[in-house]
Amino acid sequence: MSKKNGGFTLPGEAGYEKLTLEMAEKWGADVIRDSDGTVLSDEILGTGYGIYSTICMIRDHNEWARQNPDKLQQTFLCTRPVTAERNILIISLMKDFFQQQFRINASDPAMRYWQVYDRTTNEVVRRKKWFYDEETGTVTITEAIPWHKYTVSFLAYRIWEEISMYNHTTNNWDKEHLMQIDPIYQETQEFLLDWMRDWCENHPDTTVVRFTSMFYNFVWIWGSDARNPYLYSDWASYDFTVSPLALDRFARQYGYRLNAEDFVNQGKLHVTHMPANSRKLDWMQFVNDFVIRFGKKLIKLVHDYGKKAYVFYDDSWIGVEPYGRNFHKFEFDGLIKCVFSGYEARLCSGVDVPTHELRLHPYLFPVGLGGAPTFMEGGNPTLEAKKYWNSVRRALLREPVDRIGLGGYLHLVEGFPDFCDYIEKVTDQFRDICDYHKAGRPLAFQTRVAVLHTWGSLRSWSLSGHFHETYMHDLIHINEALSGLPVDVCFLNFKDVLAGALDHVDVVINAGFAGSAWSGGDAWEDPEVVSELTRFVAEGGAFIGVDEPSATPGYDTFFRMAHVLGIDEDTGDRVCHGRWAYELETIPGLLPDGYSIEGRPGLYLTDGKAKVLAERNGLPALTVNKFGQGMGIYLSHFSVTLENTRMLLNLILMAGGEPLDRTWLTDIPQAECAYYPASGKLVVMNNSGETQTVTVYTETEPVTLTLEAYDSEAVDVIP
Amino acid sequence: MSKKNGGFTLPGEAGYEKLTLEMAEKWGADVIRDSDGTVLSDEILGTGYGIYSTICMIRDHNEWARQNPDKLQQTFLCTRPVTAERNILIISLMKDFFQQQFRINASDPAMRYWQVYDRTTNEVVRRKKWFYDEETGTVTITEAIPWHKYTVSFLAYRIWEEISMYNHTTNNWDKEHLMQIDPIYQETQEFLLDWMRDWCENHPDTTVVRFTSMFYNFVWIWGSDARNPYLYSDWASYDFTVSPLALDRFARQYGYRLNAEDFVNQGKLHVTHMPANSRKLDWMQFVNDFVIRFGKKLIKLVHDYGKKAYVFYDDSWIGVEPYGRNFHKFEFDGLIKCVFSGYEARLCSGVDVPTHELRLHPYLFPVGLGGAPTFMEGGNPTLEAKKYWNSVRRALLREPVDRIGLGGYLHLVEGFPDFCDYIEKVTDQFRDICDYHKAGRPLAFQTRVAVLHTWGSLRSWSLSGHFHETYMHDLIHINEALSGLPVDVCFLNFKDVLAGALDHVDVVINAGFAGSAWSGGDAWEDPEVVSELTRFVAEGGAFIGVDEPSATPGYDTFFRMAHVLGIDEDTGDRVCHGRWAYELETIPGLLPDGYSIEGRPGLYLTDGKAKVLAERNGLPALTVNKFGQGMGIYLSHFSVTLENTRMLLNLILMAGGEPLDRTWLTDIPQAECAYYPASGKLVVMNNSGETQTVTVYTETEPVTLTLEAYDSEAVDVIP
Repeated sequence: MSKKNGGFTLPGEAGYEKLTLEMAEKWGADVIRDSDGTVLSDEILGTGYGIYSTICMIRDHNEWARQNPDKLQQTFLCTRPVTAERNILIISLMKDFFQQQFRINASDPAMRYWQVYDRTTNEVVRRKKWFYDEETGTVTITEAIPWHKYTVSFLAYRIWEEISMYNHTTNNWDKEHLMQIDPIYQETQEFLLDWMRDWCENHPDTTVVRFTSMFYNFVWIWGSDARNPYLYSDWASYDFTVSPLALDRFARQYGYRLNAEDFVNQGKLHVTHMPANSRKLDWMQFVNDFVIRFGKKLIKLVHDYGKKAYVFYDDSWIGVEPYGRNFHKFEFDGLIKCVFSGYEARLCSGVDVPTHELRLHPYLFPVGLGGAPTFMEGGNPTLEAKKYWNSVRRALLREPVDRIGLGGYLHLVEGFPDFCDYIEKVTDQFRDICDYHKAGRPLAFQTRVAVLHTWGSLRSWSLSGHFHETYMHDLIHINEALSGLPVDVCFLNFKDVLAGALDHVDVVINAGFAGSAWSGGDAWEDPEVVSELTRFVAEGGAFIGVDEPSATPGYDTFFRMAHVLGIDEDTGDRVCHGRWAYELETIPGLLPDGYSIEGRPGLYLTDGKAKVLAERNGLPALTVNKFGQGMGIYLSHFSVTLENTRMLLNLILMAGGEPLDRTWLTDIPQAECAYYPASGKLVVMNNSGETQTVTVYTETEPVTLTLEAYDSEAVDVIP
Repeated sequence: MSKKNGGFTLPGEAGYEKLTLEMAEKWGADVIRDSDGTVLSDEILGTGYGIYSTICMIRDHNEWARQNPDKLQQTFLCTRPVTAERNILIISLMKDFFQQQFRINASDPAMRYWQVYDRTTNEVVRRKKWFYDEETGTVTITEAIPWHKYTVSFLAYRIWEEISMYNHTTNNWDKEHLMQIDPIYQETQEFLLDWMRDWCENHPDTTVVRFTSMFYNFVWIWGSDARNPYLYSDWASYDFTVSPLALDRFARQYGYRLNAEDFVNQGKLHVTHMPANSRKLDWMQFVNDFVIRFGKKLIKLVHDYGKKAYVFYDDSWIGVEPYGRNFHKFEFDGLIKCVFSGYEARLCSGVDVPTHELRLHPYLFPVGLGGAPTFMEGGNPTLEAKKYWNSVRRALLREPVDRIGLGGYLHLVEGFPDFCDYIEKVTDQFRDICDYHKAGRPLAFQTRVAVLHTWGSLRSWSLSGHFHETYMHDLIHINEALSGLPVDVCFLNFKDVLAGALDHVDVVINAGFAGSAWSGGDAWEDPEVVSELTRFVAEGGAFIGVDEPSATPGYDTFFRMAHVLGIDEDTGDRVCHGRWAYELETIPGLLPDGYSIEGRPGLYLTDGKAKVLAERNGLPALTVNKFGQGMGIYLSHFSVTLENTRMLLNLILMAGGEPLDRTWLTDIPQAECAYYPASGKLVVMNNSGETQTVTVYTETEPVTLTLEAYDSEAVDVIP
């Protein structure tokens, strides 16, 4: 097999020109990039490789920012509640917050958006009953009701760009704080267009400009106390997009005015994990429209210089919305996603953009996530790379991307030759996978899966950030499992259900805690949604509910799909009701050895007809209920493991009426395979940390392989 | 010490006259009673003992019942929901229910109260869209919406009195089913007054008529499937009091009409553990008024014959409400409560009635609770008696009753002489306890405790039935612990709080799951309640919250008293919020060795100021938060054990500003004591199953005793 190359982006490093070119050769790179903290020397720039250059539009303009302090980005902040002991109550605004991150904006246009709330009555306090004192940074409520508690919601400038603030404080840098400027202002836009033009003029060797990302960071509010440093963070929330100007424009455009409470929401803010109300959705649309409108000017400028424009799908990505219906209007040439997990690979590959690129982990940094050693003594970057690649590879075998790459300081690999060899193997495997896909799609089983939640396709695959940030939501475990399963997957919202989307799927998964965006919250109040899903199952579909599926209060059952599932959760009203006795039943081949399910309190069988396949603490934990021509399946929890991934596949196959013991499936849950009929290639992966012998039944001879930990092998199986 | 007697009710038994008189002598009985299934012979009746006779007003009148089938008692029933597959849907009414318990009431007056509900939309189906077919016992919905689910709520006669139904089916009796007649009808009342008069005429030896109890049983709905035989049971619910006549009268009297849904409540019914709405409270008042109005006629009749009237506080006690404000109007002479637990003794002793009597366990039956052997081979009735008496005695040491007694078949004690000896000891101890109280009240510590929930004093001590029926509610564990603690306890509802009741207490306990009657549910929406409790704590009181205290959705915190507790529960909105790091702190002497707390998910510190004294699964489980001059204390769960009972006392003492290490308190949690200053008696109890050596610090010399398991000793401590 001749060595292929291309599709790989190498982080170059000035001062290590020889190493850069050696590794470019070894790993088959066609592109060399800079990283945050590295530069590329002329020696590298002149070698004929494509050159990626990283820019962050809204920071690194401190001089302009100092001259335009009213054009820094802002946010709403809400103080912690303070209890009034008498009629006068004084609340210090910045007491709870990191002083270096925020500066109160008490300008007239901003003050119009401030709100003082009586949190005991949940009522806004009239403007004439409070005043702000700039000297002390306090709000005084002059007619407070004793023993009620109050908050002040105010606008603040953000005076330290959050990503650099994190790097700065983590690495104890000693340099100027970088500020972020807000392109909502005409003057900022003019400044940024000029800057972009200059930049392009000064970077003739750059072939691809990588935007990191556009203008607005995900929300990250820091506190004043070291015991609780990060008050709030949500990878997909729009809190950092506000300004009096934008809010005023919104009011004109949408015909109603948002106020502070629309953002601070009783101090809870609006996490992505909860359903958004229409006001939040309007605001997201407003910001998205603006980011596209101005962003495409920058991209056009880049194009005018004959360069391509890629966007990094992280950091300041708010308003970009790669799964939004207008994303194509940016005219980006590519999208880059850093990946730890399979679902992130699918998140990247699913975006409608010409080029998809993954930034693999580990980054070439001395320490990795959480401060553990990587490229230093005590680190094992090769093992890390194997585990990450193992998660990503199974997703890429389902849906390809166009490129992969690394980031960081290349010189760090010098002490790790086995890492360099492993990355060579990864790049070879990646290029093979691309070739298989080019020849024709991998075999998928017939059953088509839809994940149903309030965000639908806008939040395909990802919930809000990385796995380690969202692990407490079972849906991310399900998405991760699905990312490499041989079934077609789509993401639906409740409007899609009403618009007939169920005609194109066989199994609907709904998974999340009651009230969450993933379970669906009050979307389940719509009887049309319930009856359409009921029809779908009665006519042969399947509904797989996990945690508190379809849960909403106010009806005869807490799970609105309880009649389909045959199981419901008692929230207290039914504590005096009898419970159905049951015998545990078995469905051969359904539950692999080593599967695990955590129980949930309050579960009860509705009519005693559901089969109970597993129980925890004396309550059903996994049930199957025939309903009309279809079925409801309930799982009290789902946690992603190799065995549970196979369990989920088996449940999906059973739900879709397909056999569990079948061709093109490995005989052990520790291994998976992908088959490409057009090229006759069967790729078998060992997803476990131990050597495994695995058999795949094909339409002719079975294939048996012994694979090292995390290894994979491709064999020819011509039908 | 000379042998005292009196205050003891013995179950006599015809055929065992010698034994009856022997035991009467040994146990110091002054009264002999019959039991269900026993009679008293003339030989016994003529001995000069007081005679209790048991009557159940509403059953044992089968001939009259057969002649008046329209005057049987009734209930609303609601079918399980059925999903429509087309426009026509037929629902079988009795399919889910025990055919021998119910008979459909499809008379015109009853049909006016039937309701067909679309449970998918939560809307009632118009009357012209459905009809009832008597032949098949079905309702046909003629314009059903496909894939919606429907229920039928209908009235049914109850054709088998539930308590005898249970005894009948449990003991496989072969005799006629007893029916229950409804005294709401004028004809029934006339019949019952005649019957009562006859009965008094025919029972000249009876000195006390024991009513079991008045007219309406607590709800107990049986199902048609052996896998789920008891569909619904609630010791304090009013479902079995309905009839078209009563509902019509209610409508005239209250100016609005109740409907089936007011009772069936989406099939959940209204359990006592959930807050009642105003319509349910009105209905309870209406029934209570009727039960008193007619009941007092029967009692007057009994009085006219020179007999006393006692009421048994169980079975058909619905509408009696011994803690209701009108209970005294019955003019009962006594109240009898069967007791397993200390809180039941307090439930009895707290009623405003001349004589309070406890029916001790074990009953003289071959088998006891749950079918375990008692007075038969394999049984240990003496050990059972010790354990029950141990629970009851500590309550009686706080608040006395006037009498105790046993029930059942006396002849069963013949094989158990140690039981007879132990009961002799119990009766002696009981009479001593009565004497101590007569001399003067026991010492109570200064801290006054109020338990706050939606029912307030109407549901003092009891939640709804026995401990084993309500163990899943932490409040019953707390009530049981409190029943023997040396502190004054009262029960408040939220109106009491607004009416100034907090002026008379030092510590408020609120304990229950969110939305329950015990936590308070939407009562916490009232800002006056929150601010009054805030004031109370700020000015020096204490609020002890257990489970999900003061929880209600819609506010900035889920626990409305979170600002006082310093801790709150995240219901999902705050999943992206930072959490306060904390160090576990210790308060010397507060937590006894062996205390236990179960954790709860979602808990978070609000402002980081609360001291965390215990944690579970990395989350706070016991916290103390200074607030103004007072404090908030939070416990994630409370389960009654000897150690946890002491922990609760310590928390109460700390909350009340009293020392933990003090006089008149035992040095170990396995033992408790009560001190009667007026008589100089100190009673020390060993509440454990092992021998204990215990020291009590008094104002002079410490007292040290070694006590056998469950034993107690009284010593003279003259100050």
